[in-house]
Formats: sequence, C-alpha cells, structure tokens
Amino acid sequence: MDNVRVIEVKRSIFESNDRDADKLRQELRDSGTFLLNLMSSPGSGKTTTLKRTIEALKDKYRIGVMEADIDSDVDAKAIAETGVKAIQLHTGGMCHLDADMTRQGVRELGIDDVDFAILENVGNLVCPAEFDTGSTKNAMILSVPEGHDKPLKYPLMFSICDVVLINKIDVIPYFDFDMDKCREYILMRNPKARIIPICAKTGEGIDEWAKWLSEQIEEARK
Amino acid sequence: MDNVRVIEVKRSIFESNDRDADKLRQELRDSGTFLLNLMSSPGSGKTTTLKRTIEALKDKYRIGVMEADIDSDVDAKAIAETGVKAIQLHTGGMCHLDADMTRQGVRELGIDDVDFAILENVGNLVCPAEFDTGSTKNAMILSVPEGHDKPLKYPLMFSICDVVLINKIDVIPYFDFDMDKCREYILMRNPKARIIPICAKTGEGIDEWAKWLSEQIEEARK
Repeated sequence: MDNVRVIEVKRSIFESNDRDADKLRQELRDSGTFLLNLMSSPGSGKTTTLKRTIEALKDKYRIGVMEADIDSDVDAKAIAETGVKAIQLHTGGMCHLDADMTRQGVRELGIDDVDFAILENVGNLVCPAEFDTGSTKNAMILSVPEGHDKPLKYPLMFSICDVVLINKIDVIPYFDFDMDKCREYILMRNPKARIIPICAKTGEGIDEWAKWLSEQIEEARK
Repeated sequence: MDNVRVIEVKRSIFESNDRDADKLRQELRDSGTFLLNLMSSPGSGKTTTLKRTIEALKDKYRIGVMEADIDSDVDAKAIAETGVKAIQLHTGGMCHLDADMTRQGVRELGIDDVDFAILENVGNLVCPAEFDTGSTKNAMILSVPEGHDKPLKYPLMFSICDVVLINKIDVIPYFDFDMDKCREYILMRNPKARIIPICAKTGEGIDEWAKWLSEQIEEARK
C-alpha cells in the first residue's frame, strides 16, 4: 500500500539508551507531542485497540502511528486504513525498540506534524520493558485469555506502565480470569498504575481510555 | 516448596551458541535423553499443557522439567505438584535461554536420571526462536485467542518448530479464529511442521501429542 512507509530501523549508536531516551522525551516536550509506547504479548489486541483509539480521537488530534514489527506489514496496513499516518518500523529480528530506533520513526512521522504519536512496540512482555523508548507514557494491554497471574511472571513490564488495559473482557465467562486478583497483582507491581478494563472488539471501556489519553495530550501541549 | 530447586542461570561463556547447542544435543543423545524445548507467548497455556503431558507419560518415562522464568517460581511449583522433578531456572531478566543455560538445568535434573526432559522456555515469541538451546526437538503453543495471523508476524518461531500445538480450541466459537488459514500460514513458514489442535483444559488432542512425544523419546533411547 502506498500510504505505508517501511523503515528498516538501525541499532542505536548511543552508548546510553537511557540518556538518549531522556533526550527524545525532551524533544517531544519541546514540540508539544505526546508519545505513547504501547506494549503487550502477541495477540492481546494491540492493533484492534489502536483502531478504536484512533476512531475516538482522530477528529480532535493529529495522530501518527509507528508499527514496530520484526518483518511484517500486517498491522501498519490495518492502521493506514483508518486514515491516519502510519509507518512500519522493521526491527530486523530485534525484540524491542530503543530510543534511537523510536526517534527514526518519530522523524518519519514529522515531530511537528502530530499531536499524538503512538508506538506499537513488538509483541513481547520481556525485552520492550527493559528499553526506555523515550515515550511520554507507557501503556500495556493484558488480555483476559492470558490469565490474571501475568503481573507475577512479568514484573518489570507491569512496573513501568502508567496504564494497564485489560482487554477482551467480553470473554471473561469462558476463562478462569479473576479481575480482583488481577488488579491486586498489578498494583503490587505498580501502586500508581491506572487500570482500565476494555473490549476493543465492542468498544466497551474505550471512552475512559480516550479520556485519559486526551488529558495526557492536552498536558503535553501546554 | 522443598521440591523446587531454583537455579540462577549464568550467561554463556561460549562464543558460539550454535556450536555449544550441537554439543549439548550430542551429550543428550549419548545418554538417551530426549529434550523438548517448549515455547509460546505469555498466557498461551504452556504450564497447563505440560501438566497434561506429564499425566499422560509419567508412568512410562522418567520426566524432568526445567521452568525458565525471569524471576518467579509460579510454574515450577505447579509442575512439582504433579510429582515429577521440577527445577526453576531464573534468567535474571534475560528473555531467552541459550545452550549453556540449558546445560546448567539439565545437569541439575541429572542427564542420566531422565528419559524425557522438558524446557519450558520464557514466554516470548521473539528471542527464544533466535537461540538454539541444544534441544532434540522444538515445539510451540499458539492459543486461539492470539489469532491465526501469528505465523505472519513471528515467522522465525514458526519456522524452527517441529510441532505447533494450537491450544484453547474450546473457545473457538468466541473468537475470529480461522483454523484453515492458521494451518496455511504455519505451513508457509515451515512445510514440515506437525500441527496438533488441543485443549489443555479438557484434555482434547493430548493423546495425539503424547503419541508423537513417545515416538521421539523411543527414538532417543535407541
């Protein structure tokens, strides 16, 4: 598709990713751009959630999406269909994005051309948690079929996320998923985490999520 | 729990993981031990599948399980309850196991004390695919809620697996999961892949899986 640009991102040349991430965060702040780093396991519904999010906010803000994938273009094509700017970041087998790779994406989107930039990180609960991308905020999706015990098994991911979306709540009746336990385990890892149950398929909970995002985007524009 | 030993595995000192993996594979062959490397996303049902597998084969073979986790003991405890030897490998934040880390686990199990050793790798579809653990065979679990498009997005994982178990087939009615497309995509990545639909929760399909495993274990003992 013509409206999907594919970028083969290069490994960072910076010694310290953390320092570089802080630098990117400052650049974003200077240009009034809010960057969300969205993480999850494979198949938890990142792309469907993103499509709902775009639908809710695209008339209010200029949105740009970076789709990080090892080597497919499946998601960027789906996002481009929503009408917002979407670019594909190919990590060349890498399991995460670092700040410099993210910067290459932000540059392609045009830092002054978007109010709300979204990085859909590689589907992985381990490595993306270890690399600060320079995003303004981190969010993750945990889907009901994955189980409520995941905060016990992937502690770092839950501890670095400002928001945890609990997706696929429509299938709760068919799984042994304990929402109270899930909340308890998430807050154990991160007492400040905002937890929002959603169903990206039906749109349930998207209002609350869009409201939180709007507040962050407005904050970034101040 | 007293019957769960926790090993903090060290990074490999070997320059070439591939060479070391071949060496471990030879050691296993020499002692007649079959080692299965079981991989999947977080929450696809590795531990439940393992419990079913153990139930089906523990009267026939001496089984030992290595549970790789970033830092929890949740799974090793669940496995130890089945009565087989279970050890916990802590990767210290690492997103995969390499051959030397696997060897440390096999040594703890006792290479001559087990016919069938199982490595439950870190929940991750990216990094574990890149590191040969020295296992005799690789298997992965894809669960229905993750979606039938995953072979398109995580090509390497599907291409290195001898068997793909498609788990949670009991919830197919509640998801947009196309089994024919899933088979097609898997075989596109790996024409030799054996595909076995299962439901670890109800036991459906476990017979076929246990039969395949028995053939491999017998082959290793020759």
